Amino acid sequence: WPKKAEIYIVRTDGMSCSRETVRASGCLSFAHPSTQQQLLVWRERPRCVLVLKKLGDEQWDSYLRVLRYLGKEEDMRVVVEPHEYLKLSQQTDLNFVDTYNHDEAGRLHQHVDFVVCLGGDGTILHASSLFQRAIPPVVSFSAGSLGFLTNLSLQSVEDDLRAVIYGCEDLDQCSIEEEMRGVHITLRMRLECRIVRQNQSDNTPQELYEVLNEVVVDRGANPYLAKIECWERDTLITKVQADGVMLATPTGSTAYSVAAGGSMVHPNVPAILFTPICPHSLSFRPVVLPDYAELELRIPGDARCPAWVCFDGKQRQELQRGDAVRVRMSTNPVPTISKMDQTRDWFGSLERCFGWNDRAEQKPLGYIDRTDGCS
Amino acid sequence: WPKKAEIYIVRTDGMSCSRETVRASGCLSFAHPSTQQQLLVWRERPRCVLVLKKLGDEQWDSYLRVLRYLGKEEDMRVVVEPHEYLKLSQQTDLNFVDTYNHDEAGRLHQHVDFVVCLGGDGTILHASSLFQRAIPPVVSFSAGSLGFLTNLSLQSVEDDLRAVIYGCEDLDQCSIEEEMRGVHITLRMRLECRIVRQNQSDNTPQELYEVLNEVVVDRGANPYLAKIECWERDTLITKVQADGVMLATPTGSTAYSVAAGGSMVHPNVPAILFTPICPHSLSFRPVVLPDYAELELRIPGDARCPAWVCFDGKQRQELQRGDAVRVRMSTNPVPTISKMDQTRDWFGSLERCFGWNDRAEQKPLGYIDRTDGCS
Amino acid sequence: WPKKAEIYIVRTDGMSCSRETVRASGCLSFAHPSTQQQLLVWRERPRCVLVLKKLGDEQWDSYLRVLRYLGKEEDMRVVVEPHEYLKLSQQTDLNFVDTYNHDEAGRLHQHVDFVVCLGGDGTILHASSLFQRAIPPVVSFSAGSLGFLTNLSLQSVEDDLRAVIYGCEDLDQCSIEEEMRGVHITLRMRLECRIVRQNQSDNTPQELYEVLNEVVVDRGANPYLAKIECWERDTLITKVQADGVMLATPTGSTAYSVAAGGSMVHPNVPAILFTPICPHSLSFRPVVLPDYAELELRIPGDARCPAWVCFDGKQRQELQRGDAVRVRMSTNPVPTISKMDQTRDWFGSLERCFGWNDRAEQKPLGYIDRTDGCS
Amino acid sequence: WPKKAEIYIVRTDGMSCSRETVRASGCLSFAHPSTQQQLLVWRERPRCVLVLKKLGDEQWDSYLRVLRYLGKEEDMRVVVEPHEYLKLSQQTDLNFVDTYNHDEAGRLHQHVDFVVCLGGDGTILHASSLFQRAIPPVVSFSAGSLGFLTNLSLQSVEDDLRAVIYGCEDLDQCSIEEEMRGVHITLRMRLECRIVRQNQSDNTPQELYEVLNEVVVDRGANPYLAKIECWERDTLITKVQADGVMLATPTGSTAYSVAAGGSMVHPNVPAILFTPICPHSLSFRPVVLPDYAELELRIPGDARCPAWVCFDGKQRQELQRGDAVRVRMSTNPVPTISKMDQTRDWFGSLERCFGWNDRAEQKPLGYIDRTDGCS
Repeated sequence: WPKKAEIYIVRTDGMSCSRETVRASGCLSFAHPSTQQQLLVWRERPRCVLVLKKLGDEQWDSYLRVLRYLGKEEDMRVVVEPHEYLKLSQQTDLNFVDTYNHDEAGRLHQHVDFVVCLGGDGTILHASSLFQRAIPPVVSFSAGSLGFLTNLSLQSVEDDLRAVIYGCEDLDQCSIEEEMRGVHITLRMRLECRIVRQNQSDNTPQELYEVLNEVVVDRGANPYLAKIECWERDTLITKVQADGVMLATPTGSTAYSVAAGGSMVHPNVPAILFTPICPHSLSFRPVVLPDYAELELRIPGDARCPAWVCFDGKQRQELQRGDAVRVRMSTNPVPTISKMDQTRDWFGSLERCFGWNDRAEQKPLGYIDRTDGCS
Repeated sequence: WPKKAEIYIVRTDGMSCSRETVRASGCLSFAHPSTQQQLLVWRERPRCVLVLKKLGDEQWDSYLRVLRYLGKEEDMRVVVEPHEYLKLSQQTDLNFVDTYNHDEAGRLHQHVDFVVCLGGDGTILHASSLFQRAIPPVVSFSAGSLGFLTNLSLQSVEDDLRAVIYGCEDLDQCSIEEEMRGVHITLRMRLECRIVRQNQSDNTPQELYEVLNEVVVDRGANPYLAKIECWERDTLITKVQADGVMLATPTGSTAYSVAAGGSMVHPNVPAILFTPICPHSLSFRPVVLPDYAELELRIPGDARCPAWVCFDGKQRQELQRGDAVRVRMSTNPVPTISKMDQTRDWFGSLERCFGWNDRAEQKPLGYIDRTDGCS
Repeated sequence: WPKKAEIYIVRTDGMSCSRETVRASGCLSFAHPSTQQQLLVWRERPRCVLVLKKLGDEQWDSYLRVLRYLGKEEDMRVVVEPHEYLKLSQQTDLNFVDTYNHDEAGRLHQHVDFVVCLGGDGTILHASSLFQRAIPPVVSFSAGSLGFLTNLSLQSVEDDLRAVIYGCEDLDQCSIEEEMRGVHITLRMRLECRIVRQNQSDNTPQELYEVLNEVVVDRGANPYLAKIECWERDTLITKVQADGVMLATPTGSTAYSVAAGGSMVHPNVPAILFTPICPHSLSFRPVVLPDYAELELRIPGDARCPAWVCFDGKQRQELQRGDAVRVRMSTNPVPTISKMDQTRDWFGSLERCFGWNDRAEQKPLGYIDRTDGCS
Repeated sequence: WPKKAEIYIVRTDGMSCSRETVRASGCLSFAHPSTQQQLLVWRERPRCVLVLKKLGDEQWDSYLRVLRYLGKEEDMRVVVEPHEYLKLSQQTDLNFVDTYNHDEAGRLHQHVDFVVCLGGDGTILHASSLFQRAIPPVVSFSAGSLGFLTNLSLQSVEDDLRAVIYGCEDLDQCSIEEEMRGVHITLRMRLECRIVRQNQSDNTPQELYEVLNEVVVDRGANPYLAKIECWERDTLITKVQADGVMLATPTGSTAYSVAAGGSMVHPNVPAILFTPICPHSLSFRPVVLPDYAELELRIPGDARCPAWVCFDGKQRQELQRGDAVRVRMSTNPVPTISKMDQTRDWFGSLERCFGWNDRAEQKPLGYIDRTDGCS
């Protein structure tokens, strides 16, 4: 038998292949899974924290409790949003609380070690929109029922915050004396979205949005179906006639995308979901694309109506014929800290939030219960 | 403002993080997409090829044409399956053709540079089952209509094979003089499946299967719903009451999984699909898991009937109460060579094979076509 | 203006149009909805009752309680199945209980005024299979959790039975003195299924089955997709390539059909559901046909494998190439007695049994909760 | 054995049961299917026809051709819409064409024997909206590709119109000499929709709409999910949190409802489809209700935003908190004339318009094609 020809493999984007390797035997193989659970390890104690809360006064007491704990017990620099800072000025015992001005807002990520969110999943979306480029790790506490992203309750907020600050692997059993071993962290992909107007001069600054859930192009209140061209780089993938189409992250797979019929994708899967909204075609199934996909949703020149684009449910604006949104993986993920193994945590959320497969244990209905035994 | 605390991140499986990095600014970011299209580059000319064909005599002429081209024009060592070798013994001009015996079968991957498949997608499944561990790159030609995996037609088989042998990036424009620049290759994940019998003694050799499409556990011909426990490592994810449940690769997402309602997942996405088959629960939506998931499908002790397991549609066998199948990513992917950019190729297959979104260009039905204009 | 031309409309099956009419104005209109809730009114007190129970001894006490109530308190002739009659022979106080022999079984419907079922929905399927042609009204009590068909609990079994016997509209407030006003009844359509063997001689008695839920043709344990031709009278509707296909009644729409993706159809809708099981086509959506449809599922001569047919989950048998099942509405519905308005009852079952839309009241996840107000 | 107790059954709406009967044997049975194909028979030759066409000049020639045929060859009174009448005034040879004024519009149905539609399905929706109460039979010709409702092509328009006028069963073989035997007709159910404003004084005239396809309540351009209460008479069925909810007729089941995931329901099935639009609940499956259902979609007082209602894609208007739409079967169906048996016709439309199950004949992909035979 001849000696086997030697080979190597290269990525077309010039990065080196880290997972795909050629073994000594000359065979192609995977060195390891491409994804994995990850731990964040502090090399030194974090000193500066941004605390965000849901609008409204519902959580005012918890808010003060958290601020005091961080500022007094942990001696951290505690930063809040300007509109909350104003309200706090009455509280004489909170002199350690600070805020930032408009100029400083864009540089916050250079100083803030982590972000604390109080409220529902919407508060994390708000954190994501505050940090349009790099964003520090986020730990979030739910005000009421736990969400997908807010999976810690306020009950043991001090213990959980201490565990984050001292970086223990198991937040439950953490003590100050323990060796620092890191906290579970999920780097949640965002999508970088760029609006490209047809009649844009070259020096117009482009509109740029980073979304944590999804970007949606839809017909808005128009009576006609939206007509949208979908491109991947230079290839026209398909033309959509539908209420709309969305591109979602795995994090967003359990938000609007699941309502439109998309699969639920674990946040550690590096992928972009392409989910049509009420397509007028029986065969238009949702599709899951690799994270290197570079997509464009374009309103064709012959569309009957303009369409609308929306980023994480906000900044809704019109897209004229010829306008487009370019979408690709952002290099700035939102790191979220969780208490448990992400997979267990995620399946728990599916059950808790959606009643996923909740009949599993019940008796099936309308099925035979008197028969002749197994075949 | 205080100086930001330094951090690092680690993978819990001990591999180093290749994509997730800490920037100079102290922020977490992605260095690049985790996936990418890849090229296979030969360091030297391949010399040994295995040629597989679909059962039956339909493609006999094409088969001889391919064997002659590879053996005579390209002077390669050409290997065929023993049952075909017998049939070929009549052909006096094919003395360069060789076969292998039972002992050699397990070492074929050490000698074969690449595999040529003639036939439908089933022929590639057959190649996958022949090479239960490492498998050389596969190039496949369709006998009739193109499939998902067999996307080259026999019409220009010599040109396409020459392009593979000489390793050109663009198979269409390839010439021998050209600098070797590699061929598009997709490393298709397989699942490593292990049957664990309840009453197995420790030294029983375990039954091991590598599947390219999916592993299915179902009720077979039993009148009752199958009852299946699904575990991820030590966590019970859910209990299924359904006709069955399957774990599929992205390659398998367009086979049985899509029939059961799963999303279509691009083969470059590193993921495992968890797709129920006719679940008796309204809320049991398909789920896409990361490639590091280690899953187990177990028949509980209180199940009414045994169940059946099936690997890529074959090796069907019974699972008794207490038996289980353990499933995880195999480190031995099936490398398939394609002529084009994988993404364009894949969307082409969706359209060609499924009529995916094929009404896109038609006029929507039953919708208003006389109205007052856009809102 | 000219005088309008007079018209009339006729049904093609020769029955007169009872709902579709021509108004005095010459316009076509509906006289009333085609369906409606219905009441059963006894002209005289029912005297003979058949009591069925689920196999096993779980419900033995409730069973005796029901038999004694009907026999002693209400002085009815109480009939039980032969195998239960044997077991009851020990009970000296049940001398009013009777059974039937093989010859009498086929004439039971001529004597039994109503049937009492104790057990799950399966017990009603059993009742349906006992009475393959005409079947008396059925009232059913659930042993454990309420089902779709068994929506009365055993707690107030005497009150509920008294209400049935004395025929009150509102079973809750019924008293003997009250004027008889009828009980809510649903006439549940069954399907009459006839196996037609290819090589059947003309005088072979045909196999006939009446199903309350569904008839299924599937691939059984075969590795290939089933290939099934679907005809409506003389028209080939479509060819299915799938795990199988089922024809279901509205009653069966919440059993296996919903697991295969079918819509849930209220039992008062006169329709036949045509639901594919894991079809290998993206565009094969379930279809709801009128009750006059006469359907045939046929295994074509070129099918790779035989298929299997199954009636309400039982009597599983092979269909060879060329064999077929002919299916049409049976004129013998199963009348089931319910306590409430059927629509309220049915929506209650959807929620109770499936958690239908059970997140309705919860907060949606991953959606914005801090925004700028409505548009 | 005792003599069986006599029974009868009554409809709760007071109409007599026409299909459900008590047999001589004392058993409940169906006398016949509740639905059936129907024929329209003219007692005398129709004399007055309304011709509608799609907006725009595309079909001008066909329009003139039809007008001349009806007016000159068949000597009918030909009526057109006022805006078309103006355009036709140039044509000197069309003096038989007439129109109507605003007052006459409401009485058109008293004079017009049938309506001819030229254009897509939208033209029939327009006809339906012109005749908000009774509407004469409609025969429709497609300008381009055939639709669901417009299933006749213009090619043989004269023959087809002659067949309608002379009332032949088989339009293809119709001749004047033939005995009149009627034309296939489908009485398409409409929904009668009534907006009920919260602060409406009792003598405000209510807004009433008849829809042929569907009535939709949705969130419009609001960022929040719509919150909608669904009532059937006095029972709260469910609360919806979704993009919206629609109530559709069987005719509308193949329009917007199918895009939202609804089943396809044959137009002869007397039913109302309750289809959620992107519901934020995994378990909210579409539901098919009987035609006697009386439904109400109500915006609750605690909804975050107002919602929007839309009738057959038109008359879009806001619903404030407390407002509602009441929906029930209209007694004024739209009678559409078809050339063939409705069932064959409908399945033909499914295939033609949607590619329903269009892979049936192709080879399944990714499935095994080399195996060991059937089990």
